[in-house]
Amino acid sequence: MDKITNVLAERYASVGMKNIWSPEGRIILEREWWIAVMKAQRELGLDIPAEAIASYESVKENVNLNSIDARERISRHDVKARIEEFCELAGYEHIHKGMTSRDLTENVEQLQVFRGLNLLLEKSITALIRISEKAEKYSNLIIAARTHNVAAQPTTLGRRLAMFGEELLFGVNQLQSLINNYPVRGLKGAVGTQVDQLTLFNNNSSKVNELEEKLLKHLGIKKSLHTVGQVYPRSIDFTTVSALFTLGSGISSFATTLRIMAGNETASEGFAKGQTGSSAMPHKMNSRSSERINGFQNILAGYVTMTSNLSGNQWNEGDVACSVVRRVALPDSFYAIDGMIETFLTIIEQMEVFEPVIEKENTHYFPFLSSTTFLMEAVKKGIPREQAHEVIKEHAVATVRDMRNGVITKNDLLERLVEDGRLDLSLDELQNIMSKADELIGNAKEQINQFAEQVCVLEKRFPNAKEYKPGTIL
Amino acid sequence: MDKITNVLAERYASVGMKNIWSPEGRIILEREWWIAVMKAQRELGLDIPAEAIASYESVKENVNLNSIDARERISRHDVKARIEEFCELAGYEHIHKGMTSRDLTENVEQLQVFRGLNLLLEKSITALIRISEKAEKYSNLIIAARTHNVAAQPTTLGRRLAMFGEELLFGVNQLQSLINNYPVRGLKGAVGTQVDQLTLFNNNSSKVNELEEKLLKHLGIKKSLHTVGQVYPRSIDFTTVSALFTLGSGISSFATTLRIMAGNETASEGFAKGQTGSSAMPHKMNSRSSERINGFQNILAGYVTMTSNLSGNQWNEGDVACSVVRRVALPDSFYAIDGMIETFLTIIEQMEVFEPVIEKENTHYFPFLSSTTFLMEAVKKGIPREQAHEVIKEHAVATVRDMRNGVITKNDLLERLVEDGRLDLSLDELQNIMSKADELIGNAKEQINQFAEQVCVLEKRFPNAKEYKPGTIL
Amino acid sequence: MDKITNVLAERYASVGMKNIWSPEGRIILEREWWIAVMKAQRELGLDIPAEAIASYESVKENVNLNSIDARERISRHDVKARIEEFCELAGYEHIHKGMTSRDLTENVEQLQVFRGLNLLLEKSITALIRISEKAEKYSNLIIAARTHNVAAQPTTLGRRLAMFGEELLFGVNQLQSLINNYPVRGLKGAVGTQVDQLTLFNNNSSKVNELEEKLLKHLGIKKSLHTVGQVYPRSIDFTTVSALFTLGSGISSFATTLRIMAGNETASEGFAKGQTGSSAMPHKMNSRSSERINGFQNILAGYVTMTSNLSGNQWNEGDVACSVVRRVALPDSFYAIDGMIETFLTIIEQMEVFEPVIEKENTHYFPFLSSTTFLMEAVKKGIPREQAHEVIKEHAVATVRDMRNGVITKNDLLERLVEDGRLDLSLDELQNIMSKADELIGNAKEQINQFAEQVCVLEKRFPNAKEYKPGTIL
Amino acid sequence: MDKITNVLAERYASVGMKNIWSPEGRIILEREWWIAVMKAQRELGLDIPAEAIASYESVKENVNLNSIDARERISRHDVKARIEEFCELAGYEHIHKGMTSRDLTENVEQLQVFRGLNLLLEKSITALIRISEKAEKYSNLIIAARTHNVAAQPTTLGRRLAMFGEELLFGVNQLQSLINNYPVRGLKGAVGTQVDQLTLFNNNSSKVNELEEKLLKHLGIKKSLHTVGQVYPRSIDFTTVSALFTLGSGISSFATTLRIMAGNETASEGFAKGQTGSSAMPHKMNSRSSERINGFQNILAGYVTMTSNLSGNQWNEGDVACSVVRRVALPDSFYAIDGMIETFLTIIEQMEVFEPVIEKENTHYFPFLSSTTFLMEAVKKGIPREQAHEVIKEHAVATVRDMRNGVITKNDLLERLVEDGRLDLSLDELQNIMSKADELIGNAKEQINQFAEQVCVLEKRFPNAKEYKPGTIL
Repeated sequence: MDKITNVLAERYASVGMKNIWSPEGRIILEREWWIAVMKAQRELGLDIPAEAIASYESVKENVNLNSIDARERISRHDVKARIEEFCELAGYEHIHKGMTSRDLTENVEQLQVFRGLNLLLEKSITALIRISEKAEKYSNLIIAARTHNVAAQPTTLGRRLAMFGEELLFGVNQLQSLINNYPVRGLKGAVGTQVDQLTLFNNNSSKVNELEEKLLKHLGIKKSLHTVGQVYPRSIDFTTVSALFTLGSGISSFATTLRIMAGNETASEGFAKGQTGSSAMPHKMNSRSSERINGFQNILAGYVTMTSNLSGNQWNEGDVACSVVRRVALPDSFYAIDGMIETFLTIIEQMEVFEPVIEKENTHYFPFLSSTTFLMEAVKKGIPREQAHEVIKEHAVATVRDMRNGVITKNDLLERLVEDGRLDLSLDELQNIMSKADELIGNAKEQINQFAEQVCVLEKRFPNAKEYKPGTIL
Repeated sequence: MDKITNVLAERYASVGMKNIWSPEGRIILEREWWIAVMKAQRELGLDIPAEAIASYESVKENVNLNSIDARERISRHDVKARIEEFCELAGYEHIHKGMTSRDLTENVEQLQVFRGLNLLLEKSITALIRISEKAEKYSNLIIAARTHNVAAQPTTLGRRLAMFGEELLFGVNQLQSLINNYPVRGLKGAVGTQVDQLTLFNNNSSKVNELEEKLLKHLGIKKSLHTVGQVYPRSIDFTTVSALFTLGSGISSFATTLRIMAGNETASEGFAKGQTGSSAMPHKMNSRSSERINGFQNILAGYVTMTSNLSGNQWNEGDVACSVVRRVALPDSFYAIDGMIETFLTIIEQMEVFEPVIEKENTHYFPFLSSTTFLMEAVKKGIPREQAHEVIKEHAVATVRDMRNGVITKNDLLERLVEDGRLDLSLDELQNIMSKADELIGNAKEQINQFAEQVCVLEKRFPNAKEYKPGTIL
Repeated sequence: MDKITNVLAERYASVGMKNIWSPEGRIILEREWWIAVMKAQRELGLDIPAEAIASYESVKENVNLNSIDARERISRHDVKARIEEFCELAGYEHIHKGMTSRDLTENVEQLQVFRGLNLLLEKSITALIRISEKAEKYSNLIIAARTHNVAAQPTTLGRRLAMFGEELLFGVNQLQSLINNYPVRGLKGAVGTQVDQLTLFNNNSSKVNELEEKLLKHLGIKKSLHTVGQVYPRSIDFTTVSALFTLGSGISSFATTLRIMAGNETASEGFAKGQTGSSAMPHKMNSRSSERINGFQNILAGYVTMTSNLSGNQWNEGDVACSVVRRVALPDSFYAIDGMIETFLTIIEQMEVFEPVIEKENTHYFPFLSSTTFLMEAVKKGIPREQAHEVIKEHAVATVRDMRNGVITKNDLLERLVEDGRLDLSLDELQNIMSKADELIGNAKEQINQFAEQVCVLEKRFPNAKEYKPGTIL
Repeated sequence: MDKITNVLAERYASVGMKNIWSPEGRIILEREWWIAVMKAQRELGLDIPAEAIASYESVKENVNLNSIDARERISRHDVKARIEEFCELAGYEHIHKGMTSRDLTENVEQLQVFRGLNLLLEKSITALIRISEKAEKYSNLIIAARTHNVAAQPTTLGRRLAMFGEELLFGVNQLQSLINNYPVRGLKGAVGTQVDQLTLFNNNSSKVNELEEKLLKHLGIKKSLHTVGQVYPRSIDFTTVSALFTLGSGISSFATTLRIMAGNETASEGFAKGQTGSSAMPHKMNSRSSERINGFQNILAGYVTMTSNLSGNQWNEGDVACSVVRRVALPDSFYAIDGMIETFLTIIEQMEVFEPVIEKENTHYFPFLSSTTFLMEAVKKGIPREQAHEVIKEHAVATVRDMRNGVITKNDLLERLVEDGRLDLSLDELQNIMSKADELIGNAKEQINQFAEQVCVLEKRFPNAKEYKPGTIL
């Protein structure tokens, strides 16, 4: 039997994200960390031969996962297994001095998280740019905004897209804020007191501080923790996965709505080249990818639960009850959100909009969609608000019922309101309101511009984002 | 880069569980299902040549995941890819007649679930047997029962083990009940109406019912659903994963308590042969495996969340928003609980009990542990309950404080109570109560027997369970 | 400021459910439990005066929550406060003999759970009956079954309802199974060993067993736990709340689908008498109650998470880290599911079906909905399945596109297929297939009967269920 | 029957928090919002009489929840009920002009969230100050740091406290960042396009923008959303509740550890004046409040799940499937974290530390706790790291076993190492290492200072925080 693969990584994630989280990638990050520590220790006076360091350097990319696994099956200690492997390859025993397992693993894992967050930031900005482009493209296409899934007032399709874009923007802002505040554990020793490095350096506290600074520079992370235990607080993991969940929310709301629109035939996610529809029902163009996006969001929710259980549950200076959970929840939540954004970038490009269907729907609903404005105008004429509401409601409900029950085939709400007379609005006045579609969509276009401007600012800060293209999705 | 492997499957799960859920295993299950359908269709009169079926049979174990993947990357339709692969191997196009994708996948996935549940049932009974054996071994070893993590009254170590055993037993009962009630979807067609098979069989409804029955027999599942849509209700998945979580609870509570006991040095999970402790702190024997058990339980909670999000959320006759979630949550929750039980079976065998430490703790606490009985006896002598409580509390609290503050080195609660006099109990009486340890543990031994008897019943029904040995754990 | 009320109880739950879980109701249950214990203890020889018991009996319904609260604010011990209150009211100190707090609270809370489960069982059967009635009413009303929210094949509205009914039925079966297996803690003492009652009864073990049996009879629960600690295993609470979540799933799926149908105007949840629609958009009839049902399901998911965190996390013989959680999650999950069923019972009665809209939709989609049957028939004529699929797909996709893009106004798929010729089916043959709607819905009607029969069995076992009417909902 | 109260609000939350979230408080916030809107509309030219506004002002605190409830039971529309009530009280119909329900409720609820967050921020800074004070108080008290719940290396109690303080500090930083980025919906109309206000103001877009600005000033929130739908994105709620969960994590980890320490008798949460211990076991001083803190964290996890289900699930421009969930999850998560901090502030004051017990534990473990340093020193002498590790492990494990099995009563690891000789360290050298406790705790004291300095910065920014005292807890 082949090894069972990680579905999220192998089916959905991008190569960039896999490179960060793959076992091989991690082994190399670890070895680079050990080498960085040795170099810094040597610079600060420890007796580590330059040849030893060179030898470690020369074998660092020689990664044999099977050999490491075999060692772990004997020692039942994963770090031990990796130390032995690297030392045997190099022919020296100089790594891991004054270090405990967690001096290795915590920092490397935080580095994976940090790089993952940065990769996602850039990719989400691509997503914002794409959604902003589409919002501008459809900024004038009037469509019935729906609340409770029922036609409510006119909006434009572009504005609907910008609405989901703004939710994504909120997620991107949260992500940026997490990246800016992300603190790393550093080389703090078995229980966090830095005693082991202090011992190595004969209690020369300033050397130990220098060592710490050199290493933070290696990681590229600015904030560090000072009074951490064996492990960094697991609420940092929860906050990380929560931020990924928040990031996915705007995209997932978009996908949900696209699935609903597909049911009304106003839009669809489109077909990719070569894609087959349902095997039994050949006519169907299913929202498979949009559904998958919702699935990814759901998966992230599960990892939010897993990491929530790690938080607020630290026993003394820490332990490894979190270990198996983090092995699953950290990489897999990054794979999931990565696959989600890849899928979104594909859909936003290939999605189809069916303007004739939208127009037909508009005709059907427009008298209703204008009713708030009828109400406003009646109020201006001095009709008490509650009374005007009552009149409109009475006729609107009757019109709806008659259409649904086949009594009429065309929306005749205007005629009914005029005949009733209580609103004090003539047919001309009502038709005039309805015909000014531009007014009925309110500030929609200006609002789209406000969204686009914010995206522009980010686009400038991340110049590569605009060009990013998603890989081919399944 | 190698394919990224599934951590839960490859690090923790047993071969038996991997066989059920591996991609290869699944492909073979699917092919067997297709063949079973063809055979039944042929028996019921469809024109499917025997040679075609024979040809499919001859290639069914010829599984090439890469080839299937390559097909899917073109069609973006997983079932289509697998149909093409199998047909090309066989040189015929006779499978999947009157079937939609879900007629294949739903049934095969339910079969995986069903086999997984049965595997876990047998293995959990092994766990019950092991815990029952240990409970009997330590049925007389008196130890301070703790509530709020504070010594409360005497119990025996065996009884504590039986307590966790009884929680596991509750989980096993729930599991059995799920297995008995588990309903399968069957060959219901694209939207559940059986129209496609009916068409194939010229609207001969009784033939279609016969087909269904033949196939249920193939699956080995008794209950079936009648008015299902394209998919079976996802609350069945939630119920499945919840049952796995419940099953893990007794084991996880045991592990939590063993970790606490290790902190007091009354017990430890033991070292496996060749296991290395902490790399930095050589003296330490850490509760790594117990911690891992708690980690697995946490992982299961995440899958409970994922499957909860699939439930109560069906759009019309169904869709695939659940697909990516189920690809992750179903196999991985089975791997997690499987790894958990394997780990438990290892720990329960190798765990160590430190009787001298327990005895020392008993000496330290016994006057307190007996205080409920002092209270009862005082009440029998006519002292009002609340007053007796007040007296004991006053001196007990003072004794605790004096011990903790180093004022005294030996628990002298009895002397204080006698000196106070209000309880109307002499030193002899008090010492007499304390010395009757057998009475102070109440019905502990009888209760252990009650637990053991229930395990016995299961042991008889599952004669292979007793001999099962876990694989070597990491 | 008034006391802040429990939203779920006061806005949504029925009086029946509030009676079980209200603080007053609980105080009375507790006092009845204490009295039951005293009576049993007296019968078994303890010296408790009959007058004392009579005095307790006479004041048991005299519940003053404020007075109890005031006591708790002094002692910071809730049970203590309730003991004092009851004793002061009665003028005796005979309750709670040989009992610890948990001997009171665990049993009373399990009784609340048990009664709550039974109330829900009966009410869910009412829900099944109502859905079954509607399924039969609409058993012939053909509607487009949708997968991926896209029209797929014909079904009937009745069958769609029965589909959700069957998911509810699965939940009801799980609920029954939980009720049958629900085990109660009993009077086990502070750490579970029964030592305190044994002491009271001079170590007469058979008397203590008799006491236990008398009390189980008082509770009306058959199964009991033997080796429990201070608390019963919290995985029982998780299993309980999970069962409520499963119970809600069918109802919630129904509500989700009704919300989608409202968007297509094929059905709506209806308006209750006096209900006002949107205040700003008078024409709107919103699916507020269906949305609320989905909200309840979501709330239940939160309580599943809370109770999952209590499970597998027992420290030694137990503690009260679960206390505040259970105070919230247990009553509130019962209120939520109760409010959900009340809401459902209201909607299922008042829901509206718009047959002319459905008919119009059918006309629009029927050629597509019949395409699987075209495919089947072509296969029967000897056209290879994949080729037939390709032909139909080509024209179906083109027809869809032309309709959506306003090129055609009527579905002309049949004409296109005939003109193409590759399917070897004439226009007559195709129209003939389409016209046999009865065949296109397959076994739908028979399946509805199968569902109805299962409901009938339950209806007979619970004769009051049929008549239950929900209260007025907000 | 009395109304059933909200347990979290009435048992645990502070008056300050209840004032924000109580129904009365909310009604007043809403009325103030309506008045603010009317004033701004009048200033911008709408014809709203000053007397009307004055009349509304005069009755705004006249809150009668029962009357409002009665109205809602008729209209089944909560906002409508509140409009009617307020208008009838004032004798005018001028509120809610150009507004939809969500123009009222979204903004008021966001204001509640915003004020709640600010209240918590100040209170958490109090918590940081208190923990920092205790950390400094115990900065020199040496205690065995534990990893895997097993003694590992020396630390100080103060440092352990600072460790949990630093986790809390991370939560506080996240909270501040959320407050700074929190965006409010504003007066956007039924579907977000601002059409209704534009109509009211004759399409004068700049007046509508002015109106918006005036109102944001009323709320005191700086950021606003531009392309929002009927509702603001629910991922903002998820992010809010997640931030509360993160905030609770440090406190909850502290409580977990205190519960473990209580089991070892090194510390306890103390007794409040008048508090009664266990009713059955009078000697016990239970960690009830610490356990409750863990319970609150668990409750928050449930609300994280609930709000996660609201996110990424927006249908079109929004609906009220979130309504019942937010009625529960928003106030209740604020009550829970508020009760948690109140409880923490009580415990951190009254907690007891048992120095003699800690000292005894230190004596027992010190040779082990020093072993990492022995290892370092041996390495300095040129012994290969792995070999030194092997030697120490061999003797450490043997010593542990002999102590646990009663073979020895005193830790004689040093003697064994000297006798073995392979480490090349004399008894003097080993004892010398052990005696320099100051060195064995590494940088502990300096690290505490680093933590305290960060707290100082916050203390200065929030000058009232230092003096805050928690209410009396149950």
